[in-house]
Amino acid sequence: MPISSLPRLEPRLLTELGSFVGSSNVLTASTDLLAYDCDGTTLEKLPPSAVVFVSHTRQVSEIVQWCARNKISYTARGAGTGLSGGALTLDGGILIELSRMNRILSVDTRSGLAVVEPGLVNVHLTRAVSEEGYYFAPDPSSQAACTLGGNVAENSGGPHTLKYGVTTNHILGLTVVLPSGEIVEVGGECRGTPGYDLIGLFVGSEGTLGIVTRITVRLMRAPQTTRTLLLSFSSTLDASLAVSAIIAQGIIPAALEMMDRLVCEAVEKKLSLGIPEGTEAVLLVEIDGFEAGQDDLVSRIETIGSAHDALQVRAARNDAERSDLWRARKGAFGAIGSISPSYYTHDGVIPRSKLPEVLARIDEIVAEEGLRVANVFHAGDGNLHPLLLFDEREADQIVRAHRAGEAILRLCVEVGGSLTGEHGIGFEKIGAMSWLFDEATLSVMHGVRLALNPDQLCNPGKAVPSPASCREVRRVFGSKRYA
Amino acid sequence: MPISSLPRLEPRLLTELGSFVGSSNVLTASTDLLAYDCDGTTLEKLPPSAVVFVSHTRQVSEIVQWCARNKISYTARGAGTGLSGGALTLDGGILIELSRMNRILSVDTRSGLAVVEPGLVNVHLTRAVSEEGYYFAPDPSSQAACTLGGNVAENSGGPHTLKYGVTTNHILGLTVVLPSGEIVEVGGECRGTPGYDLIGLFVGSEGTLGIVTRITVRLMRAPQTTRTLLLSFSSTLDASLAVSAIIAQGIIPAALEMMDRLVCEAVEKKLSLGIPEGTEAVLLVEIDGFEAGQDDLVSRIETIGSAHDALQVRAARNDAERSDLWRARKGAFGAIGSISPSYYTHDGVIPRSKLPEVLARIDEIVAEEGLRVANVFHAGDGNLHPLLLFDEREADQIVRAHRAGEAILRLCVEVGGSLTGEHGIGFEKIGAMSWLFDEATLSVMHGVRLALNPDQLCNPGKAVPSPASCREVRRVFGSKRYA
Repeated sequence: MPISSLPRLEPRLLTELGSFVGSSNVLTASTDLLAYDCDGTTLEKLPPSAVVFVSHTRQVSEIVQWCARNKISYTARGAGTGLSGGALTLDGGILIELSRMNRILSVDTRSGLAVVEPGLVNVHLTRAVSEEGYYFAPDPSSQAACTLGGNVAENSGGPHTLKYGVTTNHILGLTVVLPSGEIVEVGGECRGTPGYDLIGLFVGSEGTLGIVTRITVRLMRAPQTTRTLLLSFSSTLDASLAVSAIIAQGIIPAALEMMDRLVCEAVEKKLSLGIPEGTEAVLLVEIDGFEAGQDDLVSRIETIGSAHDALQVRAARNDAERSDLWRARKGAFGAIGSISPSYYTHDGVIPRSKLPEVLARIDEIVAEEGLRVANVFHAGDGNLHPLLLFDEREADQIVRAHRAGEAILRLCVEVGGSLTGEHGIGFEKIGAMSWLFDEATLSVMHGVRLALNPDQLCNPGKAVPSPASCREVRRVFGSKRYA
Repeated sequence: MPISSLPRLEPRLLTELGSFVGSSNVLTASTDLLAYDCDGTTLEKLPPSAVVFVSHTRQVSEIVQWCARNKISYTARGAGTGLSGGALTLDGGILIELSRMNRILSVDTRSGLAVVEPGLVNVHLTRAVSEEGYYFAPDPSSQAACTLGGNVAENSGGPHTLKYGVTTNHILGLTVVLPSGEIVEVGGECRGTPGYDLIGLFVGSEGTLGIVTRITVRLMRAPQTTRTLLLSFSSTLDASLAVSAIIAQGIIPAALEMMDRLVCEAVEKKLSLGIPEGTEAVLLVEIDGFEAGQDDLVSRIETIGSAHDALQVRAARNDAERSDLWRARKGAFGAIGSISPSYYTHDGVIPRSKLPEVLARIDEIVAEEGLRVANVFHAGDGNLHPLLLFDEREADQIVRAHRAGEAILRLCVEVGGSLTGEHGIGFEKIGAMSWLFDEATLSVMHGVRLALNPDQLCNPGKAVPSPASCREVRRVFGSKRYA
């Protein structure tokens, strides 16, 4: 977008905005705004008309009320690591930046909870409580950068979702600034707050129902021991069947991740982990709990591996070996970066039992577009992440990557799955919501949004489509993607 | 209520109602209606104007639309075991009886799910899948009678909530007839359905947002082994500290139940289980999982018991002994019935760390009213069930039982707890919602209700207060309880 066409606020409005937070906490220079023109979804970009750094709940409330009076839309943003464009301002609204609200307000390990601000980086919470033997369970790949406010907005998952659940399972209470500017307290320190489940409603609502300014999270006791295994298979079918066999035995691994051949090759080239030749799929299996009993579980998993013709089963013998195995998984995205100029990380969910057929179909879909795909994903809960490899410098490849992505998503829905496991709908997939839900169900969601956000100034065009928001996305990007 | 003052539908309306389901499936005789004048909350009673037995979703939709046209309110009912009056028709509305919609429509253990109708009795589901090694985790005390539709409405818990979560954690999908008569599909077979969390919203909404007519539930793999221990303590303080110590070690028992002296005495008198003299509190601790590792956990729990001066620690050595220990817990309510003509089962939640002080205060509160209290509850998650013992034949005792109950609930809220752990708000506690939530938060809930249930014909006066519903409860019962 040429700088001359950036959205701008009138000078009077800018002055007013500065009066809430101090003018030094409002960014309006074109060069500054361009740094906020996207989140982790970089294919479409739109800068906000201003970025406002807030430092406490009352300030957020004042700004939200000011937006309401002036009919200016707004979007909350933390670290901007989101992968569905949830933190993008679609229509020249303002960005409310929460990254400076990053304090841990209190920790109570006896009750297993902490109260934090939304700008706190995910891993900083675990670091702060790890000496006492506690941790915060949701661990998205971006956990070194992403904020808890973002995790709440997107209901983030991570490799350990299979055993420990997603963000909503770890949130006890929220302070929310509603689109009316009112400040409400939702949930509390105990389970079982009555009435409608507003925690469930706000968590995962992608910032469309209000702005969360304080979060009471559940802390988990760190397990006494953790064991990690890497199993290599000569076919994705064998690997998929091993996944099903592990679950069918009643083992609930802390993590159960799969990586396909392309990922393994890229990882091996970079890290030399000794993944055997002929490997078509690798499973990373982690179990945790008390020391007693872990040997038994490890040998059960080894047996399942052998029974499914694993080329190799490696159980880490110590922490150093565990880290090595995790480096394969955590380094996967970086390794893919080294074999392709660009990649598009997709996010879909399928019934676990459909893994082999869906992986095969994805290969075909991507081959039809003349592209390559690398799969690295949470096999245990059927949450796929096909990485579509392409070259962003070639316009045609972008189009083909989008087309392949759309076909993969349609496939997920066709087999009884879903559009997103943990990245959210954002604006990226808002047009695809109608593949999954009929009009009546979408109307219920839209009705809920209107109940809380009647003017739709709060992060418009995200998460839940309305006729207006679908049109908006098309108008802005001139695309009919997912529509 | 004298039969002459029973609410009645005009003959024309009755005929129309019969046309949807066949007149033999509509009850209108006074004697029949009196059988439906309450659920498990028996202190206040009001009969419906008709009871309609439905057999499929389309019928429910037709009846709901007919109610909307005729401005007749309606309440869904399953087994009527609810403990907060959720299935009571407050204003002469009709009851829509779902108990005949009790089929298991499909079971898919490979994917760990089943599709059932709402009238299915909780334990019948587990029975149907237990041979394949699966079960449905939520196990309210009433599980031999209560229905899954009721479990969904109340977000029911049970002794195994601590490890396995409440009903909402086990529901994947719902078919719901909205107050508009529209039929919507919510959730699905996979985790991670995007948009707003409508499963979370409908589960626990106490039948105020629509009528659930089909449920996709998660089935769990039955654990390989289960171990049960009974620990007797000479003080509730010791027992409470033992609870905290177990959790602090990172042990997550499948169940962690406490019973106080009065319950133990009643149980001992009836079952002769050998609970030692001088016992003031007993803990029933259950762990489950793979055989390997269980001995270690049992000895950890035994050590914690000894460290907290347990009078006795008994670990069941076989299934027969396990059943014996559970008989103590499961027979508690019956045993209390044998020492008091009536009892009122309360339901509150407190932070676990507050157990000793709250139990002491409950004793004082109840003594001040000249009554007795027996406590049998889910200690692991701080979900109290004080049973207030009184004699229903003495009006004054009813008043005192209510007063004590109110004081106990206020105490729960004061210490940072909540009004209900698993019984719901119903009409019973609707007046108390304002103790826990400010007006802004209640307005959010009410706004959500209006979005889905604009005419408020769907189970009015339950779960979430509106100015109208509070007045309604007072008008009907002439009481200012909790108001």
